[in-house]
Amino acid sequence: MTSTGATRLMPAYRINAWLEQPRMVDVPVPEPGPGEVLVAVAANGLCHSDLTMSQIPGEIGAAIGWRVPFTLGHEIAGTVAELGPETADAPPVGTGVALVSPASCGRCSYCLAGRDSACPNGLAGRGYGRDGGLARYVVAPVRALIRLDGLDPVAAAPLTDAGATSYHAVRRVLPVLEPGSTAVVLGAGGLGGFAIQHLKACSPARVVAVDTSKARLVVARELGADDTVVGVGGEPGEAGKVAGLLREASGGGAAAVLDFVGTDATIAAGIGAVRPTGAFGLVGSGGGTLRAPWYGGLPREAEVFTFQGSTIADARAVVALAAAGRIRSLVEVFTLDTVADAYRALDEGALRGRAVVTP
Amino acid sequence: MTSTGATRLMPAYRINAWLEQPRMVDVPVPEPGPGEVLVAVAANGLCHSDLTMSQIPGEIGAAIGWRVPFTLGHEIAGTVAELGPETADAPPVGTGVALVSPASCGRCSYCLAGRDSACPNGLAGRGYGRDGGLARYVVAPVRALIRLDGLDPVAAAPLTDAGATSYHAVRRVLPVLEPGSTAVVLGAGGLGGFAIQHLKACSPARVVAVDTSKARLVVARELGADDTVVGVGGEPGEAGKVAGLLREASGGGAAAVLDFVGTDATIAAGIGAVRPTGAFGLVGSGGGTLRAPWYGGLPREAEVFTFQGSTIADARAVVALAAAGRIRSLVEVFTLDTVADAYRALDEGALRGRAVVTP
Amino acid sequence: MTSTGATRLMPAYRINAWLEQPRMVDVPVPEPGPGEVLVAVAANGLCHSDLTMSQIPGEIGAAIGWRVPFTLGHEIAGTVAELGPETADAPPVGTGVALVSPASCGRCSYCLAGRDSACPNGLAGRGYGRDGGLARYVVAPVRALIRLDGLDPVAAAPLTDAGATSYHAVRRVLPVLEPGSTAVVLGAGGLGGFAIQHLKACSPARVVAVDTSKARLVVARELGADDTVVGVGGEPGEAGKVAGLLREASGGGAAAVLDFVGTDATIAAGIGAVRPTGAFGLVGSGGGTLRAPWYGGLPREAEVFTFQGSTIADARAVVALAAAGRIRSLVEVFTLDTVADAYRALDEGALRGRAVVTP
Amino acid sequence: MTSTGATRLMPAYRINAWLEQPRMVDVPVPEPGPGEVLVAVAANGLCHSDLTMSQIPGEIGAAIGWRVPFTLGHEIAGTVAELGPETADAPPVGTGVALVSPASCGRCSYCLAGRDSACPNGLAGRGYGRDGGLARYVVAPVRALIRLDGLDPVAAAPLTDAGATSYHAVRRVLPVLEPGSTAVVLGAGGLGGFAIQHLKACSPARVVAVDTSKARLVVARELGADDTVVGVGGEPGEAGKVAGLLREASGGGAAAVLDFVGTDATIAAGIGAVRPTGAFGLVGSGGGTLRAPWYGGLPREAEVFTFQGSTIADARAVVALAAAGRIRSLVEVFTLDTVADAYRALDEGALRGRAVVTP
Repeated sequence: MTSTGATRLMPAYRINAWLEQPRMVDVPVPEPGPGEVLVAVAANGLCHSDLTMSQIPGEIGAAIGWRVPFTLGHEIAGTVAELGPETADAPPVGTGVALVSPASCGRCSYCLAGRDSACPNGLAGRGYGRDGGLARYVVAPVRALIRLDGLDPVAAAPLTDAGATSYHAVRRVLPVLEPGSTAVVLGAGGLGGFAIQHLKACSPARVVAVDTSKARLVVARELGADDTVVGVGGEPGEAGKVAGLLREASGGGAAAVLDFVGTDATIAAGIGAVRPTGAFGLVGSGGGTLRAPWYGGLPREAEVFTFQGSTIADARAVVALAAAGRIRSLVEVFTLDTVADAYRALDEGALRGRAVVTP
Repeated sequence: MTSTGATRLMPAYRINAWLEQPRMVDVPVPEPGPGEVLVAVAANGLCHSDLTMSQIPGEIGAAIGWRVPFTLGHEIAGTVAELGPETADAPPVGTGVALVSPASCGRCSYCLAGRDSACPNGLAGRGYGRDGGLARYVVAPVRALIRLDGLDPVAAAPLTDAGATSYHAVRRVLPVLEPGSTAVVLGAGGLGGFAIQHLKACSPARVVAVDTSKARLVVARELGADDTVVGVGGEPGEAGKVAGLLREASGGGAAAVLDFVGTDATIAAGIGAVRPTGAFGLVGSGGGTLRAPWYGGLPREAEVFTFQGSTIADARAVVALAAAGRIRSLVEVFTLDTVADAYRALDEGALRGRAVVTP
Repeated sequence: MTSTGATRLMPAYRINAWLEQPRMVDVPVPEPGPGEVLVAVAANGLCHSDLTMSQIPGEIGAAIGWRVPFTLGHEIAGTVAELGPETADAPPVGTGVALVSPASCGRCSYCLAGRDSACPNGLAGRGYGRDGGLARYVVAPVRALIRLDGLDPVAAAPLTDAGATSYHAVRRVLPVLEPGSTAVVLGAGGLGGFAIQHLKACSPARVVAVDTSKARLVVARELGADDTVVGVGGEPGEAGKVAGLLREASGGGAAAVLDFVGTDATIAAGIGAVRPTGAFGLVGSGGGTLRAPWYGGLPREAEVFTFQGSTIADARAVVALAAAGRIRSLVEVFTLDTVADAYRALDEGALRGRAVVTP
Repeated sequence: MTSTGATRLMPAYRINAWLEQPRMVDVPVPEPGPGEVLVAVAANGLCHSDLTMSQIPGEIGAAIGWRVPFTLGHEIAGTVAELGPETADAPPVGTGVALVSPASCGRCSYCLAGRDSACPNGLAGRGYGRDGGLARYVVAPVRALIRLDGLDPVAAAPLTDAGATSYHAVRRVLPVLEPGSTAVVLGAGGLGGFAIQHLKACSPARVVAVDTSKARLVVARELGADDTVVGVGGEPGEAGKVAGLLREASGGGAAAVLDFVGTDATIAAGIGAVRPTGAFGLVGSGGGTLRAPWYGGLPREAEVFTFQGSTIADARAVVALAAAGRIRSLVEVFTLDTVADAYRALDEGALRGRAVVTP
């Protein structure tokens, strides 16, 4: 691709105004600025959060720094198509790359400590307040590029958000996952499925998956779970029962529990299953809390943590795992002109894997 | 001291039967078994938990392995008076020692990892279910001895429990206390006062003390607090107000908050004051919880933890700090025959420092 | 088994006097003391260090606290046969157990921090200065028992020393073994073979094995090595060449290098292969050093470490890995009456696996 | 300051051509590019490394990416004078700032992990291959700015290199500096003097300073050293003697030794003084190595590390320490027109503190 004087157009699936549904429109192919590259999109994963973005009022959007219109899509993989100025260290044109999904500034104390998932300056990014990947091209800074090393971009795209977020949780608990220990994954959907794989690839722990859906637990087994438990709905006594089953299945208590649901019930079950000195990580935004005194109720000497998103290092790690064949993405492929159908299927829970859109 | 055939007697303040108030009785001087030494008690600190031990029903006491009668007192310092068999590595007779307060087995996976405060086999110990320090002599295993290195036993006794427990919390948060950071101590009583001192001795953090009592905050300043905030009672809005003051006083959020109270109000204030990647440690048994969703409500990337007691290493550390003059114990001294008065003053909140009983 | 008045005898392979070759003699079955159990030996692994113990002069032996006579054998697995006094928390008679190989006191600051491999009080132990496992029975404290959970004692015995020592090195470098990283094992013999397996079981790292023997590298591949390099003899230029190959094989530098040889050549090759922020662990006693300035010669921001032995937690971890089928022991089985032949084969390098003696 | 069409000139002390001595010349005031600010220099510390930069042959300089001419000076503090484009998050004009001394790319895996001192892309920077601080103005990216928060720029300038490098070493060993432990500083010059202060401000360790110069040890005491030892020259037996004194002064071994000299003698003394599980950090470029086998020669379970430079977080930390009055810079102030005299004094060892040049 070479730049020409004439503005080239491309179709893009975007939110054109606050509180409007996204739709396909023709927009100019963007030009990379200093330290940026133009990426030809090969695959873009769809995320539940996309569905809610058109419902954000303008004053909220403005407060967090979002601009309309913007193109949706924040799980992107493709090929470097053009280099902007000051990109001496960028991969050459033609290189397959995935794009880091969370935005971060690179300058604050969190970024400088390698904890860019806590960056306060990353509220707007590609696909959320800025132009994302549901188009033929997207621009990205060199800092956001991850070489694919031969990995299929369709597999790579969902790794940048769903895969990296679940890895962020797994990485934090690795130090407690000694041989003979057990890790529990609450919620065996998209992120949970990745978490199961990361745990098996990176630790010697036994992995127990928990879900209300037996079908998802079948998939969990295929992804490497050593054991499964059906639960945790919100019925009275359910959380306590599951906690008991998990303590039994783990020889007295799990070293780590990762909760990808986050309701009162999963939190109660998970907290009740953690052994002393273990860890409980909350990833799911289910709105739950612990309805018991913390002193005596939280496991002794353990840690409880929560977070949003992932670091650039996390994204690189999961791409490396996938490139080495240690993890895989479950995907359903759609084309850009059927993206609305794909979102509908996502909204209805009719998908088995992550929806990935190709141009 | 030399052993003789005749049984020697000594006065001891003890619980003689379940649900009976403790009283002074004459008991035989104990004999150290294999790996044990006999310690002549020089000082014994009194603890709030002592007051409740006479209210434990027998079936509960039996379930946790306690035996009656037993002598009270679990904050002990004194002098090695006699060596039992198999004590080649014990300090010689005449050595000043403090006795580790929490019991632990030394054999479980927690003990073997240096995390003996999580030992499941430490429910009964000297002064709680076994004979403690409110007597002329007490026996202890070599593993529980800490050399005083010239430190006054009256100052040392309260270090073994109150001092070590607060240090356990401080030690855990040291990694996040970088230069320029702030540590908050909620509750400036006995344990909180030690925590303030440990923080100043072991980290470069600014220390902010919070208490409902202005008098305790005056002491907190004397102990090294850089700043103080009056709060956190349970009035509506109080927790949010204190959280705001603390975020302001810490330039945007505290790296660590240690809560020695543990009510709903202190937990809400403390959690609201922690910055991303920080830490919140719950030490106080106030029975509170967080009445807000964890996702979005807990600080991002931070850790929440709780625990009971301390490790042997913690006790050694605080004795070293005191021996080096880096921390000090605030005490009020009583004699063994006025121990009942001391407990009464403790129960009524009439003490300014830790009550320490000398024979 | 029940104790009787008559002394029961058993054959034992032991060093009877300083500087005498070990031989088989009849000795009394030992009696377990307080906190100890009697173990019926089912398997005992032989170690190179056994061969040198008969060459230790008496004054040296006495200085490190060894007593003669003593029975050889420090890699022991068997069955609990009898409980001594004060063993309430011991596994019941009939339980299969492996015995922790290194001795440690459980009382020093190193033991109390879970770093018992640095215990200064562990110079004498079962099979080195005290009676070991080349006999029908051996006594051991409860602290040294590891439940086999169904694992074959023949497989378990070599885990307690060779398996645990290699795991000690692997465990230390796990934090740097991120997805996409490379770990190098220098020396693919007994310990190196275990290290390859531990790395594959506990981390996502690619593993490259290096050895002068192509035959050992074939075994290394079977044990899980992803790549192999033939080297590092002491020829001029050899170390630099191997370092270059390893940097190439690891995409610019290995995250961790574990050296189970320890000559000038392996140290130079390994240090030259470590990437910044990586780790170099020296396990082999080859007597080498780095013949280059440390500043500029050691990899930046990396860590260099060495150690002897392993912790109790390490031994438990490797037994758990083997019980879960994640690692296996390569062994050649001998009977107690052919133990001299087994040592001869060991001395001549004629063994493919660890020699294990069964009664 | 406002930009005008006319090029403004300023004096700058610079290397005009390879192998030429630096001299004062008039150069244009630079213009800040995207993400950069113009800083009015208030103070610039002089470094020994400046003296050698004029001796670098052109082919070497080119190989590491240096460009001539360039202005010397890499320890800079001053005031934000003008903002370039894309600097929304920059401190406003007029803000006092120090400039991070080491260069780093912010994009490589080391930078992304908060380990920018290992960045392979930081060989050229302000004052070494690019224009530095010995001028009225210098440009710097927002990422390199540290707010002074009232700290005197003359005190701040030396913190950015000498202060931050020594802190980098101290920060790494903080985890082993428990109460009762000892830290040893070998070489009590500029960096060593900062290390002593950092250790006292950030840890409870006793600090022992070692130097061949009694005068420097007097200063070390003033800076907080608890004890001093005169040594380590290269005389036979000297290193062993000093190691023995240090083991004695630390109750059996130092938890950490930081070597700011780096000769065979200091390395031997320091390694010999480290206790098991401790740390030895090499900062000094004295060209030494350990002339003894690593196995048995290096302290067990300890870590040996070396590095160059510091991270951005380190620089922020030391500025915070100084702003809080916890550390101070020993400086001798020169004006820009006497900079040649200042370098001469530095070269002759005639300075007691860091030479700092003000415009």
